[in-house]
Amino acid sequence: MAGSVATNSQGPLVIIGSGHAGYGLAEAVRARDPEREIHVVTADDGGLYSKPALSNAFALDKDAEALLDEPALAIEHRLGIRVHAFCPVERIDAEARRLHTRLGTLDYGQLVLATGASPIRLPVEGEAGALLSVNDRGDYAEMRRRLDALGRKSRVVIIGDGLIGCEFANDLALAGHAVEVVGLAERPLPRLLPEAGSEVLREALSALGVGWHLGRSVASIAAEKDGYRLTLTDGSELEADLVVSAVGLAPNVDLARAAGIDCGRGIRVDEHLATSLPDVYALGDAVEIDGQLLPYLAPINAGLRALTATLTGAPTPVSYPLMPVMVKTPAAPVCVVVPPAEAQVNWHVTATGDGIEAGGYDASGRLLGFALVGEAAMARRSDWVKACGQAQAA
Amino acid sequence: MAGSVATNSQGPLVIIGSGHAGYGLAEAVRARDPEREIHVVTADDGGLYSKPALSNAFALDKDAEALLDEPALAIEHRLGIRVHAFCPVERIDAEARRLHTRLGTLDYGQLVLATGASPIRLPVEGEAGALLSVNDRGDYAEMRRRLDALGRKSRVVIIGDGLIGCEFANDLALAGHAVEVVGLAERPLPRLLPEAGSEVLREALSALGVGWHLGRSVASIAAEKDGYRLTLTDGSELEADLVVSAVGLAPNVDLARAAGIDCGRGIRVDEHLATSLPDVYALGDAVEIDGQLLPYLAPINAGLRALTATLTGAPTPVSYPLMPVMVKTPAAPVCVVVPPAEAQVNWHVTATGDGIEAGGYDASGRLLGFALVGEAAMARRSDWVKACGQAQAA
Repeated sequence: MAGSVATNSQGPLVIIGSGHAGYGLAEAVRARDPEREIHVVTADDGGLYSKPALSNAFALDKDAEALLDEPALAIEHRLGIRVHAFCPVERIDAEARRLHTRLGTLDYGQLVLATGASPIRLPVEGEAGALLSVNDRGDYAEMRRRLDALGRKSRVVIIGDGLIGCEFANDLALAGHAVEVVGLAERPLPRLLPEAGSEVLREALSALGVGWHLGRSVASIAAEKDGYRLTLTDGSELEADLVVSAVGLAPNVDLARAAGIDCGRGIRVDEHLATSLPDVYALGDAVEIDGQLLPYLAPINAGLRALTATLTGAPTPVSYPLMPVMVKTPAAPVCVVVPPAEAQVNWHVTATGDGIEAGGYDASGRLLGFALVGEAAMARRSDWVKACGQAQAA
Repeated sequence: MAGSVATNSQGPLVIIGSGHAGYGLAEAVRARDPEREIHVVTADDGGLYSKPALSNAFALDKDAEALLDEPALAIEHRLGIRVHAFCPVERIDAEARRLHTRLGTLDYGQLVLATGASPIRLPVEGEAGALLSVNDRGDYAEMRRRLDALGRKSRVVIIGDGLIGCEFANDLALAGHAVEVVGLAERPLPRLLPEAGSEVLREALSALGVGWHLGRSVASIAAEKDGYRLTLTDGSELEADLVVSAVGLAPNVDLARAAGIDCGRGIRVDEHLATSLPDVYALGDAVEIDGQLLPYLAPINAGLRALTATLTGAPTPVSYPLMPVMVKTPAAPVCVVVPPAEAQVNWHVTATGDGIEAGGYDASGRLLGFALVGEAAMARRSDWVKACGQAQAA
């Protein structure tokens, strides 16, 4: 991956994507350079909202409108930038440094791909259209529309035992719906939590009425007079009014790959977030760095600080601080620093009033990560972050 | 109608509408004032194209893409303006001088409503969705899609005996389709031509295979295995693969009326094209002036010259020159200056090689208008325009 770090190029800065990464970068660059011509190009309406808020908006009874923090025209005005809404990019002409979009062409001096990630489509037989992934405000509006149309508390099946699946399960159960979770693993949050932590979360959600169908997936969906009938891979059946798919996100790399940019699972970038094409960078959920995807907010924030410096003339490698992942499951809140995938970890678990706290240690007793579940454990969050940071610095 | 003519207001010039009126005005104002902040707000993709070209694009085998003269981003760049595409205006807050749009709010110093006109929906029983009106590039793309899907020459029924109906009849017949025209009047172009002129046009189109079903309308449409069956108001039936509705346009006044602007059939303006609200003007197909709609290009061109002067500090009443209407029916081209509606007119008709030329005179022998049909008559167009102009000046 031969990323080149440009000095401050002539020509506009063009950012593809209007999520936290895209707008965060536009705002940070504007703060450092009041004059720079900045364009944000986006396929949607360019409204600023918090994607994490999608999975706890239901219990708060927020509609899609209430989730909008700032519309595109207000952002244009506030930042002195140009937002091109409903303007999907069709092609990058790297030679000419030009984007071809639905609304015409746009030349760039520096280009940043903040194209995000899209829900993985689960292959099911039958009514695949019943599967709803909730990854933006439009999806959320559709979910509310479907539930509101029923005019009653509903039977909701959530497919996915990860962060998003558990957050939606908590949110929809709190809102009074009957929630069933279908997951391939034997326990919720298998990649984030040690077993004891998963157990606490599972019991807390069960107490809200959430049912569990683990170690299996959905094989087929049939439309019925009144909703859907799901057949799982073990032959068992479930009835549902709404089926939410939360089986993960895949980086949006098609545009980059078609432009000849080196891509793996994500858009490959170096420590300057530079792609393999000159003056083309990438940031956010679309990015792969050192073989890893970093699909959370904290790495985006670290990345946009470094990239802002790089784009404004001070090439700066990104360095990621300790980045705890928060899972918004109020029934049993979770905070995790996941140990490196390649490490052998021994978990030391301590029961707290309503959950657990657990440290993950290597053979030499060095703290590599931690997991906190429950309010009592969360109260000790800053201690754990500090300890983990000291262990990493040592 | 108490229009007020503003001196050059502070704040941006905002134009609603990206048709010939909207973009023509933006370009003319920019030519007189290189610094003015100008916004064009539009519900569609903001691409510049010639609406009259829609009704002779088929015989030229142009697809919707080929009709696009300049995309929104190119216009932004060329004129140094801001085009807000896919940004329908929801509300005008005249007190705050602010638009509420799909993409947020936008403040204006001067506002111009170039909102155009929309096809009148014909009330029919049955499959009303079969009726296609072709009033923009999207409609045209849909018409081509429907015809191309058939993969063969098709049976097309055109409802409407006016300018647009006759132009589409000529164009689709030239492209090889079997065209039938249904019209309420007893002859084509009843409001533009004397009877002898209509007769020439009718025969010329008949020679291309166009069939006529005049003095009636469509009562109902039924879907059949292979297309549609239309029942006309006299009980007769027609089969069709495609049904084009061309029964006229109605000015888009809803936005203006909701803002408290005085409207009749159109948005009422005075001789400065000022509406009843301060600093709000209107131009184009949406406008009603002295009780008249002026739905052709020439009045827009005259209007935008005057309005440009008014908006840039030199209040200028619009004066309409002699404005011949051209009908693009190559089988029998038409040029008309329609005598005033209230006048008693005697038509003096002369046969030419392939058509007619006709002068419309009042009782004192003064020339009030003329009609030319056919190539031979068209060759004398400038003589007639000159004569008519002299008669009006006298």
